[in-house]
Amino acid sequence: MRKNGPVTSFADRHIGPDAPALETMLATVGHASLDTLVDAAVPASIRGDDVLVLPEPRSEAEVLTALQGLAARNTVQVSMIGMGYHDTITPMAIQRNVLENPAWYTAYTPYQAEISQGRLEAMLNFQTMVSDLTALPVAGASLLDEATAVSEAVLLMRRAVRGKDGGRIVLDAECLPQTVAVVRAQAEAIGLPLEVQELGEGWEAPEDLVGLVVQQPGQTGVVRDVGTLIDLAHEAGALVTVAADILSLCVIKAPGELGADIAVGSTQRFGVPLFFGGPHAAYIAVREGLERQLPGRLVGVSVDADGDPAYRLALQTREQHIRRDKATSNICTAQALLAVIASFYAVYHGPEGLREIALRVHTMASTLADALRARGVAVRHDHFFDTIVVEVPRGADSVVARIAARGINVRRLDADAVAIACDERTTPEILTALLEAILDRRAERPVYTGPTVTIPVALRRTSEYLQHPIFSAHRSETSLMRYMRRLADRDLALDRTMIPLGSCTMKLNSAVEMAAVSWPGFAQIHPFAPADQTAGYREMIAQLEGWLAQITGYAAVSVQPNAGSRGEYAGLLAIREYHRSRGETERDVCLIPASAHGTNAASAVLAGMRVVVVATATDGEVDLEDLRSKLSAHEGRVSCIMITYPSTHGVYEEHVGEVCAAVHEAGGQVYIDGANLNALVGVAKPGHFGGDVSHLNLHKTFAIPHGGGGPGVGPVAVAQHLVPFLPRSLAPVQSPAELAREGAPVSSAPYGSAGVLPISWAYIALMGHGGLRRATETAVLAANYVATRLQDHYPVLFRGPGGLVAHECILDVRPLTKATGITAEDIAKRLIDFGIHAPTMSFPVAGTLMVEPTESEDLVEIDRFIDAMITIREEIAAVERGDIAATDSPLRHAPHTMAMVVADGWAQAYPREQAAFPVPSLRLDKYWSPVRRIDNAHGDRNLVCACPPLDEYEA
Amino acid sequence: MRKNGPVTSFADRHIGPDAPALETMLATVGHASLDTLVDAAVPASIRGDDVLVLPEPRSEAEVLTALQGLAARNTVQVSMIGMGYHDTITPMAIQRNVLENPAWYTAYTPYQAEISQGRLEAMLNFQTMVSDLTALPVAGASLLDEATAVSEAVLLMRRAVRGKDGGRIVLDAECLPQTVAVVRAQAEAIGLPLEVQELGEGWEAPEDLVGLVVQQPGQTGVVRDVGTLIDLAHEAGALVTVAADILSLCVIKAPGELGADIAVGSTQRFGVPLFFGGPHAAYIAVREGLERQLPGRLVGVSVDADGDPAYRLALQTREQHIRRDKATSNICTAQALLAVIASFYAVYHGPEGLREIALRVHTMASTLADALRARGVAVRHDHFFDTIVVEVPRGADSVVARIAARGINVRRLDADAVAIACDERTTPEILTALLEAILDRRAERPVYTGPTVTIPVALRRTSEYLQHPIFSAHRSETSLMRYMRRLADRDLALDRTMIPLGSCTMKLNSAVEMAAVSWPGFAQIHPFAPADQTAGYREMIAQLEGWLAQITGYAAVSVQPNAGSRGEYAGLLAIREYHRSRGETERDVCLIPASAHGTNAASAVLAGMRVVVVATATDGEVDLEDLRSKLSAHEGRVSCIMITYPSTHGVYEEHVGEVCAAVHEAGGQVYIDGANLNALVGVAKPGHFGGDVSHLNLHKTFAIPHGGGGPGVGPVAVAQHLVPFLPRSLAPVQSPAELAREGAPVSSAPYGSAGVLPISWAYIALMGHGGLRRATETAVLAANYVATRLQDHYPVLFRGPGGLVAHECILDVRPLTKATGITAEDIAKRLIDFGIHAPTMSFPVAGTLMVEPTESEDLVEIDRFIDAMITIREEIAAVERGDIAATDSPLRHAPHTMAMVVADGWAQAYPREQAAFPVPSLRLDKYWSPVRRIDNAHGDRNLVCACPPLDEYEA
Repeated sequence: MRKNGPVTSFADRHIGPDAPALETMLATVGHASLDTLVDAAVPASIRGDDVLVLPEPRSEAEVLTALQGLAARNTVQVSMIGMGYHDTITPMAIQRNVLENPAWYTAYTPYQAEISQGRLEAMLNFQTMVSDLTALPVAGASLLDEATAVSEAVLLMRRAVRGKDGGRIVLDAECLPQTVAVVRAQAEAIGLPLEVQELGEGWEAPEDLVGLVVQQPGQTGVVRDVGTLIDLAHEAGALVTVAADILSLCVIKAPGELGADIAVGSTQRFGVPLFFGGPHAAYIAVREGLERQLPGRLVGVSVDADGDPAYRLALQTREQHIRRDKATSNICTAQALLAVIASFYAVYHGPEGLREIALRVHTMASTLADALRARGVAVRHDHFFDTIVVEVPRGADSVVARIAARGINVRRLDADAVAIACDERTTPEILTALLEAILDRRAERPVYTGPTVTIPVALRRTSEYLQHPIFSAHRSETSLMRYMRRLADRDLALDRTMIPLGSCTMKLNSAVEMAAVSWPGFAQIHPFAPADQTAGYREMIAQLEGWLAQITGYAAVSVQPNAGSRGEYAGLLAIREYHRSRGETERDVCLIPASAHGTNAASAVLAGMRVVVVATATDGEVDLEDLRSKLSAHEGRVSCIMITYPSTHGVYEEHVGEVCAAVHEAGGQVYIDGANLNALVGVAKPGHFGGDVSHLNLHKTFAIPHGGGGPGVGPVAVAQHLVPFLPRSLAPVQSPAELAREGAPVSSAPYGSAGVLPISWAYIALMGHGGLRRATETAVLAANYVATRLQDHYPVLFRGPGGLVAHECILDVRPLTKATGITAEDIAKRLIDFGIHAPTMSFPVAGTLMVEPTESEDLVEIDRFIDAMITIREEIAAVERGDIAATDSPLRHAPHTMAMVVADGWAQAYPREQAAFPVPSLRLDKYWSPVRRIDNAHGDRNLVCACPPLDEYEA
Repeated sequence: MRKNGPVTSFADRHIGPDAPALETMLATVGHASLDTLVDAAVPASIRGDDVLVLPEPRSEAEVLTALQGLAARNTVQVSMIGMGYHDTITPMAIQRNVLENPAWYTAYTPYQAEISQGRLEAMLNFQTMVSDLTALPVAGASLLDEATAVSEAVLLMRRAVRGKDGGRIVLDAECLPQTVAVVRAQAEAIGLPLEVQELGEGWEAPEDLVGLVVQQPGQTGVVRDVGTLIDLAHEAGALVTVAADILSLCVIKAPGELGADIAVGSTQRFGVPLFFGGPHAAYIAVREGLERQLPGRLVGVSVDADGDPAYRLALQTREQHIRRDKATSNICTAQALLAVIASFYAVYHGPEGLREIALRVHTMASTLADALRARGVAVRHDHFFDTIVVEVPRGADSVVARIAARGINVRRLDADAVAIACDERTTPEILTALLEAILDRRAERPVYTGPTVTIPVALRRTSEYLQHPIFSAHRSETSLMRYMRRLADRDLALDRTMIPLGSCTMKLNSAVEMAAVSWPGFAQIHPFAPADQTAGYREMIAQLEGWLAQITGYAAVSVQPNAGSRGEYAGLLAIREYHRSRGETERDVCLIPASAHGTNAASAVLAGMRVVVVATATDGEVDLEDLRSKLSAHEGRVSCIMITYPSTHGVYEEHVGEVCAAVHEAGGQVYIDGANLNALVGVAKPGHFGGDVSHLNLHKTFAIPHGGGGPGVGPVAVAQHLVPFLPRSLAPVQSPAELAREGAPVSSAPYGSAGVLPISWAYIALMGHGGLRRATETAVLAANYVATRLQDHYPVLFRGPGGLVAHECILDVRPLTKATGITAEDIAKRLIDFGIHAPTMSFPVAGTLMVEPTESEDLVEIDRFIDAMITIREEIAAVERGDIAATDSPLRHAPHTMAMVVADGWAQAYPREQAAFPVPSLRLDKYWSPVRRIDNAHGDRNLVCACPPLDEYEA
């Protein structure tokens, strides 16, 4: 295969099929080469003749060396900047066995609950932890970051307060600056009045108050009597959100105890590295009565077919993929991997351990404050948790500089004050260094007198938390390690099976791409660290943004959006501001094809747009007639169209150029959803065939792992005229390119989930142009191979030019369902018995399965999937023939658990071996579903979203 | 538990039982505290009143920071020194999923073959790879390093050649210097005549030649017509060993093709980091007829109870633990983890990939040689593989310095010549830098013309290798990752179960201890790198040696022995040389108690001693009467006694002081085997209660993982009078302490398996004195808890003072076997059905089980083991009662495979659920043995030691 060049070509490792396999696959599909296949599949009209200009592919070793060089240009300092980001100690057992373990990081979102019981348990632990610490009964499975969590809370309060139309939201002046910026933009987009107010003594709730957000401790560290504020707001008929530091809740009264309706915040400091700002898991918890309003994912307990407890995602009917423009939020993902890490941190430390850490952090801050005051330096607040403000009139710059010279970063609050945040790593030696730097002379080490609480008694927490046995069961590393392994073993991830999920692009997340994520030079950098300490990160990000712009054919890219949904929102905000900048303020119609991802519509609503649906023609393409009629019906009001290319039906639509032209002609902008970019990279550029803006999903096309349901990364890419409307950065120093971006920030951190960007950087550097293009071609071949081999067993629903599909194909199960009662779900669950993750179910067409093998699966695995599907088709045929009733068939009883198949009694109408080993190879390597099929409705009717007592499992 | 001090105490994480568990366990054992328990168990006579002086325990974060500091003091340069150590690229997928995966590194030696099928397959791949590349039919599962492998080959040749008593061994002058040093010492110890000869044109085989060792390529890189040398030696009736570079065998004729009897070498350059010298897997392969003479482990294919193919260790009857002083080698371990890594490297690259790498390395060397010659610089040899010798009359020092200034290390051969070894990482840019440094002026980049072979046609390899499908099946990373996971899942390691193996001390191998192993600052350092580049390593090693001396009460420790067996050998050589230095050359008797590890006797023989067995009294202690009679029978001839403390019976013998005194009085030395040091650390010091020398097992007591059967690390510790006889180092620069050591080297590398020493360093730094002592106490408590809870079910065979056992206990199964026919093996195999690794079987007493829970297991897991043993006892009772015949019972049919239990037909006399789920918790978390019980004898009768064809599995 490789005649010249480096011995190891990474592309040969990333791409599954080798040369003989490619030949077999091409022969099956009936094409002589990848080139002719792609020529036939991709309309000439979308293929530009410009080539991708990317660096030559590099070897694994070269990329590691390059990343080491970048990491070395970031400086790891003692980080005491605070602002919602605190240094923490990730227990190495968790780092190695979760963050660095493909069984955890390559898992998909737990929609197939039966094969996700491990991570669902970890997430339920997370919810229990949040619920306990906030003293609110229901917590979600994580949100994207603290600022967007506050934003979601604000929207929730607006929804939940009936009446008071046009009423106000008030944000605490003590809210983090990034929170204020993100929430303000969101409020403006939907016309929600919002003010920032000082919530000091004598604050009065405005009459039209809808919702109040209080930050506790405040951004300056102050701990206030929040209970009084809550009462005042409640008296005014408003709801209250408390943005609370998770660690502080071990010693400060919890929001729920004070009467808050909602609590939000970040769980980063529970063992998740700083990561230059993300990814981190934000939390949200609500009081009783608001649980069905919760945005984002929620893990709940239900029962399986045997009545045994089983976990699954709850209340999905409220989510964007079902409710579309009626959805309460556009959030699609969670920060699952980070929530899992935080949950294990809590499991490992337990209530006493967490309290001990919190007390120690608090005492460090008190010790420093006392030492400063004893030496005549003023400290602003009497009551604080971990952060103190040191008054240094006109001295902030020189104090910050002296502290920095000792290897410590603190926050310059203004010219006269410096804020210092203590954390789990703070030592008496660090306090001494701070003291000496502030005083500018030698000082004795301050006396650390052991844990003491200086917070007023009335504000102290006295209630218990984390009393569930899971938070005491795993105190030793051996025990924790085995618990993490047991949970991982219950799940099916990419390290054991292909995950052929249409539209999700579950490709290889290579170990070399993942390596840098946990290096201190990337992991231990604060998002607001001084610019001279972050040169490596900023160079890496600038290169990545440049490469992504090159790949998509746009003028510029911002990596700030930390999920696809945020990318959509950022792109739509850019379009909105563009029209406004031209005085076309009335353009608020967002056209969305009927087959679109539900998120598109939900994002449009969040960006303040009205959704108008465009019909889909019978061939699956956008109905041009209907489009033209909608454009004329909304003349002068059209803001944009949101399309996906290749379409969500998995075909390269021929008429996309006409669609774009029609919208442009009507004065609208074209948003091309980048969900299916894995069918375009190196072949066509959305920025060249009509797009004005796209978001990309780095966790799909660019190899960031799905993490069991997050992190996602959703950069937004725009044409030149939209560049000024890209989200601006709140970073301390910015490049000229960054300064040109003046849009509203959409994430807490300047560069979103910066900590995982080395993965996509490495992927592109390793693949180069040739590798990326070959990946695309191979992905298209693999989908067509599946379609060709399965078409006689299951009809393939849509095809594009040349009778070819793009990078995925839809298998139509509806005729079989009609004939036999066997559903797409039955097939999906039966695949579990084969140890194979199901394809996408019922999207974009109900009753179908959408298969996306990606380029990374080799022929052996693709054939294993195809053979399983054919075996399943034979089982359906048995139902068709009347040999067995659908309700009696192994399809309906799937997945089969070990306990069921091994039971002494066997009452099924088919043999045990058929249940367990539908193909012989399973006898040696068998994945067993830990539960039988789960009853989702039961769980939604009987909502339980925290760890159930152990005796429930003993039955 | 923790009132003050650091929030995270590592000891609390390392030690399994928490405070409430300790109370429960103490109550069961009947002691009020750990102190009173240890006071009762450990004889006052062995407990010194001096305390352990170790640094205060450090936190995980502190230890990581300290190790980062040490790593930073090692300099990673381009390494072209050669001498058997070549830089290589460890594919990150292998690093992450094997080297950094507890499922691989915490596994035990595969004696329990049924739960070791995964690593046995990987090792069989290793054997197949070695056999193919050397063109010899049978290869072992790895040896410790290249020098000891040559030593083993020399001993094998001596054994295999009948007659020729007193005949000579000839070593090639082209052998590596460390090989010559190690082999010469071994030959001297057993009185085997040995010479080093130049094997140039006209070499004639001496008439008394027994064995010839040829190095190909030679240490100066030369590739010679080895076939002619082999023929000459064979004509003289001798055998021939070729020490061959494994990578060179892709392009040079293989030893087997040339007629060699034995091939040995290192597989380090197949993806295993340099590690400052080790651990690396050496290989050995032999021609037909010599397979039963192979030293070390050998994986073979046998069949299980269903007749399906199954792997297990073959020909164990020839090994030291069975043959004792009749053993052909004292080797106990392999370098399993490293052999596994090398095997996956070969699986990943396959025959074409390896050939491509070899050709590229070779062409780099040729390109450099050509470029030098073209510029008038002489290159010594016309034919070479990867290493060239550059003639620089009187210029070596300055050339080496100029090259070093460019970040490259090469070898100073002598004052007039420099050797340069190319490897997988060599690039044209590096060649340019070399050229410029040698010429001392700017030079053009040499023209790399793509793979070409400059070796004479007659010496080139044309035969195929690695044609088994396994070497072509996993070319993509996805496929390799899943293969590695599948294999890991077949095995039971510490990440899923306790491994209560008496005398093996399977404790936690903490993630934080393991972290530094794969950092470049430790992994990518050549053992003969200049001293100024290795300051961090040398400081770490000096500290570790100091701490170990402190813990054991000896004057000095050498970490050079890279396995316990090497430590024994080194210790016995020190004793031998000590006697010789005093003129007492006739002292050659080594007294060994009957219950000793078989290795002790085998080591004594290798050190040139005669073994005299001392009887064991009925209470398990050394029979003092018999000892006195043996001492007097061998008056003046006694070299030493080798005892283990606590004894191999797991008790603190009361009379050890008398034993030591008696031997000392007779002029002998006392060797105390450190195998059971986990019962002494922090409580008593062998150097203080009578020992003159001990070896330690860092892979037992000091937390180095067992790696599935290696690496082991066996430092030797000696009293002051033996310090001069510690193994000397061949390192380029040594500390004064090192220079005082003048014994023969016992390993290839100056510091043995230096690369894993950070693990033990970290363990001691994390635990401190208090933690280490508490670990010992808890280990003793855990063993006594097991003994107490099980004593009513299985008699406990030996007990020491206070009726207590030490850190392990022997459960006597013999009465039950007599009554029912159910054996210790039946129990061991039935434990697999519970997902529990068996205790040690039939050592030190046949028909018993020896249980060592260690301090790391928590009470939940210990109770799980105890409950399993009680459940098994009930199953035995059913046989006793006659409810079921032994041959029909689940005990005899264990382990049960999934395929068996799920089969449509079920013919056993007990229910399926009893077979699969003897306790209910197994329904959720069940380990399935991939094979049924294995027939060992069948495999030994039908020896197959390479991958069988795939169709054997299809039946």
